[in-house]
Amino acid sequence: MASETIYSGLIATSTSLTQINIFNGFITVEDGKINRIGTTSEFHKLHQLYRSNGYNIVQLRPGQFLMPGLVDCHTHAPQFPNIGLGLDRPLLEWLDKYTFPLEKKYSDTQFAAAVYDKVVRRLLNNGTTTACYFGSLSLQGTLELVQSVIAHRQRALVGKVSMNLHNDAGYYNTTETEIKEVEIFVRKVLEAKNDLVQPAITPRFAVSCDEELMTNLSKIAQKYDCLIQSHISENKGEIQYVLETNPDSQSYSEVYDKSNILNNKCIMAHAVHLSSQEMALLSRRGVSVAHCAASNTRLMSGLCPLRRILASGINVGLGTDVSGGDSASILDAMRRAMDVSQHLQLQGEADAAISWREAFYLATLGGAKALSLADKIGSFEVGKEFDALLINVYKDGGPIDCHDYSVDTTETEVGESMLQKLIYLGDDRNIEKVYIKGVEVKHSL
Amino acid sequence: MASETIYSGLIATSTSLTQINIFNGFITVEDGKINRIGTTSEFHKLHQLYRSNGYNIVQLRPGQFLMPGLVDCHTHAPQFPNIGLGLDRPLLEWLDKYTFPLEKKYSDTQFAAAVYDKVVRRLLNNGTTTACYFGSLSLQGTLELVQSVIAHRQRALVGKVSMNLHNDAGYYNTTETEIKEVEIFVRKVLEAKNDLVQPAITPRFAVSCDEELMTNLSKIAQKYDCLIQSHISENKGEIQYVLETNPDSQSYSEVYDKSNILNNKCIMAHAVHLSSQEMALLSRRGVSVAHCAASNTRLMSGLCPLRRILASGINVGLGTDVSGGDSASILDAMRRAMDVSQHLQLQGEADAAISWREAFYLATLGGAKALSLADKIGSFEVGKEFDALLINVYKDGGPIDCHDYSVDTTETEVGESMLQKLIYLGDDRNIEKVYIKGVEVKHSL
Ligand SMILES: [Zn+2]
Ligand SMILES: [Zn+2]
Repeated sequence: MASETIYSGLIATSTSLTQINIFNGFITVEDGKINRIGTTSEFHKLHQLYRSNGYNIVQLRPGQFLMPGLVDCHTHAPQFPNIGLGLDRPLLEWLDKYTFPLEKKYSDTQFAAAVYDKVVRRLLNNGTTTACYFGSLSLQGTLELVQSVIAHRQRALVGKVSMNLHNDAGYYNTTETEIKEVEIFVRKVLEAKNDLVQPAITPRFAVSCDEELMTNLSKIAQKYDCLIQSHISENKGEIQYVLETNPDSQSYSEVYDKSNILNNKCIMAHAVHLSSQEMALLSRRGVSVAHCAASNTRLMSGLCPLRRILASGINVGLGTDVSGGDSASILDAMRRAMDVSQHLQLQGEADAAISWREAFYLATLGGAKALSLADKIGSFEVGKEFDALLINVYKDGGPIDCHDYSVDTTETEVGESMLQKLIYLGDDRNIEKVYIKGVEVKHSL
Repeated sequence: MASETIYSGLIATSTSLTQINIFNGFITVEDGKINRIGTTSEFHKLHQLYRSNGYNIVQLRPGQFLMPGLVDCHTHAPQFPNIGLGLDRPLLEWLDKYTFPLEKKYSDTQFAAAVYDKVVRRLLNNGTTTACYFGSLSLQGTLELVQSVIAHRQRALVGKVSMNLHNDAGYYNTTETEIKEVEIFVRKVLEAKNDLVQPAITPRFAVSCDEELMTNLSKIAQKYDCLIQSHISENKGEIQYVLETNPDSQSYSEVYDKSNILNNKCIMAHAVHLSSQEMALLSRRGVSVAHCAASNTRLMSGLCPLRRILASGINVGLGTDVSGGDSASILDAMRRAMDVSQHLQLQGEADAAISWREAFYLATLGGAKALSLADKIGSFEVGKEFDALLINVYKDGGPIDCHDYSVDTTETEVGESMLQKLIYLGDDRNIEKVYIKGVEVKHSL
């Protein structure tokens, strides 16, 4: 029989970039789907009915609230062992010295399985109910990531990374091998018939992939209706290199456009240095952007003009981009996105700063839209699947103290204060329970 | 009898702004003071001797290391209940709407005692062995903070905040009352004869204090050899207001200089918008700066030119500036200082970025110097007092995963990797033990 549960208490969910609905009420969940949302008084009316129908009732306490699960639009699972290391190097050097040598190890499936088990548990612990992963070049290694995601019941898009151009680490395939292995990878993931996990086509970036490979990958994406993920315009050295090696293209974006990978099931990480014309092109093609503020700072890539990207009509979600980024938490990604945007405004870019409300949207509904998953997740709406976090703001042993003082006078203000405390200073300890499609998935690390 | 302890294992301590000494060795501590530092091989030679003399030996395990305690050069104890709230307001509005109404409550000593107990425990939990506190306007309330610091054995400078100019919240004293109460406060703290706690003279800033008050406060500081702490040049609106209300002064710094408070036992928070002339004046006077990056970002004050301040010869420490800052952790303050400095460099200021090594210095030895405490704390040197943190990088349930992979080939590299992981992604869970003057003080929150 289906599990039927009612969550009753304070609920927070984005309804648009700038609007958050915070209310005392209830959500009923059946077969992992939200089938009713209502107010507290409606809940009290229906309470006996629910009880007699055998519903399991989860009553939130003061200090707790329910919010949609966090969406990480861009992270590199194989790079987690290097998190926090080597961040004093520029991008292309960091890749050659730190990243490629580590990623090469993932052809060892035992090593891959051990790391990926920790990666997926870490992200679930951090409230990341949906992750869009870069795996490694290794087909078998990346299938281990798929296995780990399935074992821990995370919602995920997983990509075997494609590279066919030379690098010093010798970390690439022939075009033929690459095309063959990507199709095998896609089929294997689809054969698992796990409705939480999808394959993603993952050309690393134009430094590692030529037009022939990307054109072929785009055909595979179309054939199997897959998301495409890659990197764009992260760092000035990278952009210069891409333009030099693609002399027929006027811009980095055009290189990808010629390879036919820019479409409404494509997400590009970074987009730090896009021209207005490139933003317009991405917007026209329906491409989304994964904003990875921590990584852009630590690798000295640049300050991403998030407000201008949003204003050009592009869907944006947040990415942790481990291990260019030094945090695997989307709570941190919210703060870093606020930081960078505030700093841009302080340096003269009018209206650049994003608010905590906007950061909350980007971390949830924005991310869901960017991954073409907003029909299923990202907010609490009837018909969506129940990916949610049960937050305990004043958790014992956690980072937020409870004081006998408040500036709040209304229920909404109380809720907004709790949400602000979580966003500005909360961490994984405040994420008491994590639900994906109605199933509780957070366990001790 | 005195407790005599030997700590043996990996040790990290700054020796200058850019140099960290990381080595396997030992430290012996007697009566709270470091009386010997040596290498592992020396330790092995002396091990039996120490053992037979009844030393208590603390042997660090792999993944653990010892570092100097963190120094918070600027934080507002009474503002902790508002942490994370109201950060979408500019400074002067935030003060009037959020901060002054809360601070006024601290004349209620019961309320004060309850909050301050949590504040001090929170900072100790975060590894802040030395804090330089702003209290509130209330003499009695601020004495509660002194009591709490003494009860929990933290090292601290504590200031009763002085204000004699009008504000909408009615939160100020007459000049006469203020001068009288500050002297009472200083005497009461000195009478406690606690060698870890000192009074600090604390004119809030030139918006709240006139020249007459500050001149008198400077005399009290001289009479009792006290540190003076205040705020300078945080926000453009504030600077404009100070210059308008002090038409005889050419700069914000000159206002303070005329009041005779700029000297080598003075620390100023922020210094975001100082001119080169002002930096030179502060440097000449021996004034230190508490750099509060998180607060400067969240209150949209500006990006503090940390590198230029350091280059002008000013001692700099880090401050959390709660609740303008949204984190009470100096680990976070290190990251925010790196963020801001990296963003300045990305925006064109050559060499602005500070490294993790420099951040580590600012958080420890730099802070100690800024508070005129470097003869006692800030680094591990024979003759200094033992304020230290026992770090466990891969603590169970903590934020850092241990993977069976490493890029390191030497002992120093292993230590540097551990330190980088702590600095970039560690939190209070990694701070397993906290020692102040040789006494373990971290207890569960
Ligand atoms: Zn990436
Ligand atoms: Zn302050």
